[in-house]
Amino acid sequence: MTGPTLRDPHHDGSVRFVAPGPHALGDDVRLTVLVPDLADGREGAERVVLRSLRDGEPHLAPAAPGERTAGSRWWTVEMRLVNPVMRYRFFLGGPDGGYRWLNAEGVHARDTSDGADFVLNAVATPPDWVVDQVAYQIFPDRFARSSPDTPRPVWADEVSWETPVIGSGPGVERQWYGGDLDGIAARLDHVVALGAGVIYLTPVFEGRSNHRYDAVTFDRVDPALGGDAALRRLIDAAHARGLRVLGDLTTNHTGREHEWFLAAQADADAPEAAFYRFREHPDDYVAWLDVPSLPKLDHAGEEIRRRLYRGPDSVVGRWLLAGLDGWRIDVANMTGRLGADDLAHEVAREIRATMHAIDPEAWLLAEHGHDAGGDLVGDGWDGTMDYQGFTRPLWVWLNGGAPGAAAAAEAAGTGPRPVEHGLDFLGLPADVPVLPATAVTATMREVHAAMPWAAQAASTLHLDSHDTPRFRTVVGGGTDGTVDRSGAGRRRHLLGLALQLTMPGVPSIFAGDEIGLTGINGEHSRTPFPWDPAAWDAPTWDAYRTWVALRADNVALRRGGLRWAHVGADSITYLREHPEQRVLVHVARADGEEVRLPLDLLGGEAPVALQGSAPRVEGADVVLPAVAGALLWQLATDTTWTSSKENA
Amino acid sequence: MTGPTLRDPHHDGSVRFVAPGPHALGDDVRLTVLVPDLADGREGAERVVLRSLRDGEPHLAPAAPGERTAGSRWWTVEMRLVNPVMRYRFFLGGPDGGYRWLNAEGVHARDTSDGADFVLNAVATPPDWVVDQVAYQIFPDRFARSSPDTPRPVWADEVSWETPVIGSGPGVERQWYGGDLDGIAARLDHVVALGAGVIYLTPVFEGRSNHRYDAVTFDRVDPALGGDAALRRLIDAAHARGLRVLGDLTTNHTGREHEWFLAAQADADAPEAAFYRFREHPDDYVAWLDVPSLPKLDHAGEEIRRRLYRGPDSVVGRWLLAGLDGWRIDVANMTGRLGADDLAHEVAREIRATMHAIDPEAWLLAEHGHDAGGDLVGDGWDGTMDYQGFTRPLWVWLNGGAPGAAAAAEAAGTGPRPVEHGLDFLGLPADVPVLPATAVTATMREVHAAMPWAAQAASTLHLDSHDTPRFRTVVGGGTDGTVDRSGAGRRRHLLGLALQLTMPGVPSIFAGDEIGLTGINGEHSRTPFPWDPAAWDAPTWDAYRTWVALRADNVALRRGGLRWAHVGADSITYLREHPEQRVLVHVARADGEEVRLPLDLLGGEAPVALQGSAPRVEGADVVLPAVAGALLWQLATDTTWTSSKENA
Repeated sequence: MTGPTLRDPHHDGSVRFVAPGPHALGDDVRLTVLVPDLADGREGAERVVLRSLRDGEPHLAPAAPGERTAGSRWWTVEMRLVNPVMRYRFFLGGPDGGYRWLNAEGVHARDTSDGADFVLNAVATPPDWVVDQVAYQIFPDRFARSSPDTPRPVWADEVSWETPVIGSGPGVERQWYGGDLDGIAARLDHVVALGAGVIYLTPVFEGRSNHRYDAVTFDRVDPALGGDAALRRLIDAAHARGLRVLGDLTTNHTGREHEWFLAAQADADAPEAAFYRFREHPDDYVAWLDVPSLPKLDHAGEEIRRRLYRGPDSVVGRWLLAGLDGWRIDVANMTGRLGADDLAHEVAREIRATMHAIDPEAWLLAEHGHDAGGDLVGDGWDGTMDYQGFTRPLWVWLNGGAPGAAAAAEAAGTGPRPVEHGLDFLGLPADVPVLPATAVTATMREVHAAMPWAAQAASTLHLDSHDTPRFRTVVGGGTDGTVDRSGAGRRRHLLGLALQLTMPGVPSIFAGDEIGLTGINGEHSRTPFPWDPAAWDAPTWDAYRTWVALRADNVALRRGGLRWAHVGADSITYLREHPEQRVLVHVARADGEEVRLPLDLLGGEAPVALQGSAPRVEGADVVLPAVAGALLWQLATDTTWTSSKENA
Repeated sequence: MTGPTLRDPHHDGSVRFVAPGPHALGDDVRLTVLVPDLADGREGAERVVLRSLRDGEPHLAPAAPGERTAGSRWWTVEMRLVNPVMRYRFFLGGPDGGYRWLNAEGVHARDTSDGADFVLNAVATPPDWVVDQVAYQIFPDRFARSSPDTPRPVWADEVSWETPVIGSGPGVERQWYGGDLDGIAARLDHVVALGAGVIYLTPVFEGRSNHRYDAVTFDRVDPALGGDAALRRLIDAAHARGLRVLGDLTTNHTGREHEWFLAAQADADAPEAAFYRFREHPDDYVAWLDVPSLPKLDHAGEEIRRRLYRGPDSVVGRWLLAGLDGWRIDVANMTGRLGADDLAHEVAREIRATMHAIDPEAWLLAEHGHDAGGDLVGDGWDGTMDYQGFTRPLWVWLNGGAPGAAAAAEAAGTGPRPVEHGLDFLGLPADVPVLPATAVTATMREVHAAMPWAAQAASTLHLDSHDTPRFRTVVGGGTDGTVDRSGAGRRRHLLGLALQLTMPGVPSIFAGDEIGLTGINGEHSRTPFPWDPAAWDAPTWDAYRTWVALRADNVALRRGGLRWAHVGADSITYLREHPEQRVLVHVARADGEEVRLPLDLLGGEAPVALQGSAPRVEGADVVLPAVAGALLWQLATDTTWTSSKENA
């Protein structure tokens, strides 16, 4: 398996390559392609042709050769937006009969299917502010408690803040620490210190468990969290600091005690009875993964749409009007899908329309634990939680095996190896493997190829979440649910952090990751936040603030394209490029893999270190340090880049 | 680029691997996977897990290890048909931490997207008889004329049968040879002698050109072709010989003189006005690729659906009731697609429903000049004209360059090379390249991965058609539109023929290919058939009858799976496997590439030659002849294959 190289022709959906919107049907949009010269100095293409689909038929448009930048030629072509979803790729001809296609997976010296064409949602784009954010995920019961007197919910087994979390078995869902919304509001300093700009709250509607994904109503915030007033106070406090707040809504199912479901069970003729699918009323009904406490919603009718997401009086609308800045949609991948019916896109489109009518800047994020690509095309979800294109690849590349195994293997000089640590691999039927970067970046490219660039950029990048083991544990940092201070665990965790903060997408930090918490599964990872900084792994906390700040300070990391420069077994090297700035990111999981990049293609000048080791130039090459670590360099930005600055 | 090998685990949609339907939602369907042992003798997998999507969520089901066949293990698992379209792949674990996924593109030692999952249309399958067919494509004006007195159409420039075809420029569409339906009926002996079972007729409705894709009505057969009665006579004569007849319908557009369009132009309030999209009535309207003579149909309304394809009184229904055995839909890729509207699947579904209500055995074939994959998923088209997955790859692999170039290059020992011959490459912006088999089979696998197996099997395999240059010309057999007798042209043409008759799909022979006709573009290729056998290239005609008969005589070629055994630069080797028979196909475009296959994986016994050279066994290997040509061998079929014979 060989990886991409810096000599590959390049296009992506970032501002230098696609003139930014808003666009309308019928508009012509300028696209550019960067074609590096061949190693022998000849230009990489004699001609470049855009192939876009118009009403299902390929249309060809020759690109014009434009300016040259160091060792490369720019090509430019206009694409007519004939359909709301535009799919396209580029043909590159010559020299010497060369025959190549460039699509979203890269360069192919053969014909391709249309499956990996670039995709542009021509008329439905996510809000622009999203790409500048870092999100901070809070599980309300476990972040901070404002008062010891919070009323205990009926279902709850109250425990003290210091009690270890039950990871599995009886009582998991009842274990109640009493974290609440005023507690969060009182700790916003921490979020600001970290540098995050969005707080993503898991559900706050009243439920029958500590996770509250089993809502009993969508009309009120759980009194145990402080009720509607506390949410208002939290939103106001967050907004006052420039923070945004994302809510969490279960559109796929409700709790069994939800007022709608109770009404449906009580009366087969009630309007709510059509919100669910009863095999036999009232006790035999379709439920999420056959879990009876979570009856599945049926979106075929009009009334459920009106109540849940159609118009400003719907659940989606009302809470947005109450101050939320967007919604994360739980189990979006299953929402609207039930047997012969596939209403998933209809539901997404209606939710988006309601949100846009109220606030065109609202963010609509879809949970999809696997491959969301197909669901991000068109006028539905803005983005997804990118487990398949980011989280899994990182786990596989930085997997530390059993506790201590990574350290032991590294000490023994045997490097990473597959060691059964028994962690759930995000629902896959296997232990987390250890694979080379060529493999994991191939997965990344394949998964992201199906997404419009803007959807990828508006998706969240997670090292982990409340549904997974902690990343610190995956990489070998221990399994006891406490803060890890081992060098091997920290080292690999921070390599993942560097990737999370330098790739396209919205880094989303699960509260506690930034201080080194461990956990062996989703439940076990929901650790009450230890507020005494003495309990934190200080180097981890320092690194988080550093990388979050680097992202904030460097526009290329937030808004640049993504061009792969080199991928080996143990290292990943890529450019983030923007009209105002170009940076190079290099992350190596082990020592020993020397990477040489042609200096001319990087701009001809020695790059400047922003983070990590300084560059070394040897003849015509830039030689990257062959040591484990993460580095960030700034490259020269010539006029061919800045000449399109008006796009930014 | 490396190709697949015989040691790759395998699954496809053929009867040994997917228990055949009809199925219903909720059924459990048995799937099998064949896992060859590793080269060191260990089993290739310690466990196999089915991952299928249910309502958008992955569901895992462990497969059970079953019987062993020579050097391989069968694994079996049931898949619940939860949704009308099922997508699935297999995880293969171990030995030694081995981590692989098997999807429709092959084996990956990494995670994949869902994009190349196997696809099963669970409840909508093509008619079973289709896969046993060879189709014969007839362009009515150019096949046979029943009488010199046929009335000349108003638009026509009459010419004699011996007049050379105009390939381009003025008069192309008016050149009229007077072929007609009674002429075809009188020549059915030829179709039977060839061995074809389906006649695919390009349009027979009255039009204003010799191709008749510009229909003026869908209510009557062109009088110049003999009218409705002649179609009835042809259908009856064909049915009497066991032949089926496929019609050709333009659902994307009509001619400008179509009665609907005339009514629409005459009165903006006429019901037909809603069948088209007027920018400004009556003269500014949307047309196919902006060709004013072909106004595009708008499928948004109910009335057009009723007239064209809803119910037995519609155009689709009436002519099926009049005896047609199916429809080929012209420009299916654009039908129903227009700006913000994408009704393509709705239209396909309605056409199919009407056809099925009249005749569940009717075949619905969609023209798609490019990648039809996405349009074949679900309950719409049965199959497509497989230009992207078959025709283009063959052109690229067997490209002969300029006339004589292939022969010269082969004589000079330089082998195939890219020579500009100026042929249109099926609408691509380049001359036909010459690429290795690794490249072209990668294209085949990628394109076919998006199709349900049954749709691929019900698609037509074309070396060429009335819309392309003749294959004989593409491979270097000359450009003058006459029969070619050159050795190089014939040799490469017959390699393509061997692939066409041994791959999954319905071989579709454009009348005249079987006698060696040439042609430089679609129009030029519409040669009046020369009925004097002395004018034919006899070895070509012999080879066609031989390969068509081989397909008829060998069930594996019609109904077997497709397992790649070896792909090099110059050779392609694959197995077609069926419970009743297993065969190996090997096609080499040049001498010198030796292919060795492990004898144990082929069944342990020396294969028997059905066509071409005999096998040679060397130790543990079968060694394939390293010479240009096509061979067909029969392999031993053990009880692990026949034990599932009830599936066939």
